[in-house]
Amino acid sequence: MLHVIPLGGLGEIGLNAMVVACRGEILLIDCGLMFPPAGHLGVDIVVPDFAHLRKNAALVQGILLTHGHEDHIGALPFLLSEVPVPVYGTRFTLGMVRHRLNELGVEADLREIEPRHPFRLGQHFTVEASRVTHTVPDAVGYILRTPEGTLIHTGDFKLDPDPIDGLRTDLERWGELGDEGVLCLLSDSTNSERTHETGSEREVERTFERLFQDVKGRIVVGMFASHLHRVRHVLELARKLERSVVLMGRSMARNIEMARELGYLPGISDSHFVPVEHAALLPPERTLVLATGSQAEPRAGLSQLASGEGSLRLGPGDLVVLSARAIPGNERAVSALIDQFLWRGVRVVYPETEPGVHVSGHASQPQQRRVLDLVRPRNFVPIHGELHHLHRHLATAKEAGLAPEQLLLAQDGDLLLFEEGRGRFAGSVPAGRVYRDRFGQGVVTQDILQERTRLAETGLIVAAIVIDRSSLQLMSGPQLTGQGLNLDEQALLPRVAQDAREFFLEMSRELRGDDARVREELVKGVRRAFRLHSAKRPVVVPMVLKV
Amino acid sequence: MLHVIPLGGLGEIGLNAMVVACRGEILLIDCGLMFPPAGHLGVDIVVPDFAHLRKNAALVQGILLTHGHEDHIGALPFLLSEVPVPVYGTRFTLGMVRHRLNELGVEADLREIEPRHPFRLGQHFTVEASRVTHTVPDAVGYILRTPEGTLIHTGDFKLDPDPIDGLRTDLERWGELGDEGVLCLLSDSTNSERTHETGSEREVERTFERLFQDVKGRIVVGMFASHLHRVRHVLELARKLERSVVLMGRSMARNIEMARELGYLPGISDSHFVPVEHAALLPPERTLVLATGSQAEPRAGLSQLASGEGSLRLGPGDLVVLSARAIPGNERAVSALIDQFLWRGVRVVYPETEPGVHVSGHASQPQQRRVLDLVRPRNFVPIHGELHHLHRHLATAKEAGLAPEQLLLAQDGDLLLFEEGRGRFAGSVPAGRVYRDRFGQGVVTQDILQERTRLAETGLIVAAIVIDRSSLQLMSGPQLTGQGLNLDEQALLPRVAQDAREFFLEMSRELRGDDARVREELVKGVRRAFRLHSAKRPVVVPMVLKV
Repeated sequence: MLHVIPLGGLGEIGLNAMVVACRGEILLIDCGLMFPPAGHLGVDIVVPDFAHLRKNAALVQGILLTHGHEDHIGALPFLLSEVPVPVYGTRFTLGMVRHRLNELGVEADLREIEPRHPFRLGQHFTVEASRVTHTVPDAVGYILRTPEGTLIHTGDFKLDPDPIDGLRTDLERWGELGDEGVLCLLSDSTNSERTHETGSEREVERTFERLFQDVKGRIVVGMFASHLHRVRHVLELARKLERSVVLMGRSMARNIEMARELGYLPGISDSHFVPVEHAALLPPERTLVLATGSQAEPRAGLSQLASGEGSLRLGPGDLVVLSARAIPGNERAVSALIDQFLWRGVRVVYPETEPGVHVSGHASQPQQRRVLDLVRPRNFVPIHGELHHLHRHLATAKEAGLAPEQLLLAQDGDLLLFEEGRGRFAGSVPAGRVYRDRFGQGVVTQDILQERTRLAETGLIVAAIVIDRSSLQLMSGPQLTGQGLNLDEQALLPRVAQDAREFFLEMSRELRGDDARVREELVKGVRRAFRLHSAKRPVVVPMVLKV
Repeated sequence: MLHVIPLGGLGEIGLNAMVVACRGEILLIDCGLMFPPAGHLGVDIVVPDFAHLRKNAALVQGILLTHGHEDHIGALPFLLSEVPVPVYGTRFTLGMVRHRLNELGVEADLREIEPRHPFRLGQHFTVEASRVTHTVPDAVGYILRTPEGTLIHTGDFKLDPDPIDGLRTDLERWGELGDEGVLCLLSDSTNSERTHETGSEREVERTFERLFQDVKGRIVVGMFASHLHRVRHVLELARKLERSVVLMGRSMARNIEMARELGYLPGISDSHFVPVEHAALLPPERTLVLATGSQAEPRAGLSQLASGEGSLRLGPGDLVVLSARAIPGNERAVSALIDQFLWRGVRVVYPETEPGVHVSGHASQPQQRRVLDLVRPRNFVPIHGELHHLHRHLATAKEAGLAPEQLLLAQDGDLLLFEEGRGRFAGSVPAGRVYRDRFGQGVVTQDILQERTRLAETGLIVAAIVIDRSSLQLMSGPQLTGQGLNLDEQALLPRVAQDAREFFLEMSRELRGDDARVREELVKGVRRAFRLHSAKRPVVVPMVLKV
């Protein structure tokens, strides 16, 4: 009997965490976070609810990581502090993890593994990493051999015939396993709605070469710091064009430093970089800026350059390349960023006008189909996507000839049970999203989010009164203060205070003795008075002080 | 001497308002609003800053409307209440305006005009509306003949060879004027980055026919209520399929009612509709729901259906068609809406998986080029778009052979001056965005928005104390209450109150006599105490009461 339980990533992009359990032993594949939507109300990261693992902590044998991106490793510090188990990953992935854990002062038992080197984990699992191409070095999927059969988890993958590091997705291995028989394939669904083949990263390389050729001024490339394959070819191109590289963005500098330490950026030395403070002194045609902030994050490199406030001022003759798609929710901010550069006379190219400046790191429909045809699994679970992505991937599997009973559309918290070669739904475990603020400590609940939303939409009025402890007479107030009110509403406050005062004076002595009732009545009085003058309903915070 | 001054719509999508002034006479073309981004913090609509028109109110001869969409007419009530001038528009457009003004109780002098019927306005303008195809009946552009030459303002347009109402964009008329000589073309840039031709609305008609054919359950079409051409063909299709139509969404019902009154929905009678309360009683295969909420607006028709809370419950066998693109910023919410339907087993089709369910209402690059080739203006001003859209439209004009000095990239507030056939920048006027809440009254300033953002991101702490008026002794407090704090922070409050109390007790008698200083010190004390325990900095609201 084998259980597969997604704790995250099946119903959203990010938050990837997949439990596999067999005969009292648990493995977790990935432990990722997700970023909250714009207008995040003080929530900075979202992590999976790990209640199920906390409850079964003693059974967890280890965590297997597919690659070093935040949506696959970002929740590790939170889980490890409660469930300290060994973490397995390839060299580069563990490099990323080590950095992250060091920052937060979390200890961990990190164990390096290599593709095509199977190892035993617990009594019942044999684990083998299998090489996949993604946007970061050393990405893998996992092959899990269990008493019930073999699982293939693809991780995030693309099929690039000519990847930057020469390391292609190991389709051969998956094909071999397909011939042996695979109990279940769990495959990346991110691009399941895209019908055209995801292109090779070489396309971006060629586009950059063409674009950069005739630039007389500065070249700025804005992209994710985590896309280390692209970072590598930009650095190599800069060297070829004899441009010194300026790094903007903490994560960009950190990732490049780490990649260099681990030997993933051969031929790149200190002499290729100049600090941003010196960049303004260099001839523009000798400079290339590699910046974070492709999603228009307010304090990132690109936003700084667009604002024109830093030492490096861009203008006509300079080129900015936005080498990323806007993530859903960020489009408006990214548009505004582009407009800021245009306003300064800077030439800007971005995927809408120059599709070759970005290709995806995920296989699309026809490529997902190819994997399905190769593996011919007995059961199929689409992973990594919102429900509609999973849904479409399932349709592709159907087109590939899988029968309805082989298709398992699971979501976070679903418990899938495999026995005798068949998978079925057999209940659920607690799963969900835990909101945390940027300091990684405070948990923000749905109620708090709602409270914040109301504060932000309507503003609030604080109403304070002082009551004599013995006589229960009103000694002072109500005194009103507004926060976030519009101009008309602020002007209303003195009148509202007067009305609320009268409302309070009408309260019986009996009522005044009960603090909770006084607060309640104070809120009522202010609301009623406010409603006389405005259609809006701000939050009212009552303060009752006694002397 | 002729002035062209965009007050809105050149630098954003929406907010369209264009001043044309000649020899002391002013016309305004369109008077639109825009909707704020998601996470709007209590801002419901954005209107242009009309300071320039208020200042020159006596000179304004009238407002010319291109069509009845909110981004072209939505700011009228605000302008008319301060600058009451005649409003010119076609029949359907004025119908939309009348509804909107009646709701708000604003009076206006509405004057109906027709395409190809020029009329005099003021001493110096001859105005002629010219038919364009858009997504709403009776859309026009304007031809303004002035002593300095002829202007063509396209309004929002597309080139549809076979529009639903048979009324094509009057390219012939623009061509005639091109032959005569046009001083300046102002042309819609919305789709300037799209390189494929915008398709005909007939494509959507055909897609719907194909999709609806075999549906055994309910059919739901989610779309903008303002897209009246599409509303019309959905109603006709429902009639053909013998399905009764259920309307969900106030604007949908209102627009259809008005269109019927004005005779724009021939053949559609009361008998084709059933109220939503009765819809659950009808056989599913006899029902078609036309719903608002294609942008996943929380209270709109589609969101109600997706939540499953209303009387109409969808499930397997039913079809939901999302017949609109997600507007930038809404993608994440729209994705979640799709997932909600899928979760109920409902089949959902949307543009990503079925491109034919939506076509745009705006001409794309090759079609914009066709208009440029036809008109061959002496000057060209791209309008209606963010800066990057305008920029790309300008590039198209360059490709069409216009010389750099003929290309005018104007933004909101720029004053363009035309004399002797040439246009140039000659200063600017006040322009900007005014934020208003849903009640249309309160103005929300940038400062207030920032205050609300801080409230929403960090939450706040109210700190109240009571001081004896004569002795200046602390009588009570500080009493602290939090709003929007996370759980850890809430738990800190008692300790913070204690620390802040000690801080206050250390204050000199002299300081305590100064209310402003007391408040300041109270904030400082709470902040300092809070910082001892947390890295976050909530807003602190001080309340000092005296007895």
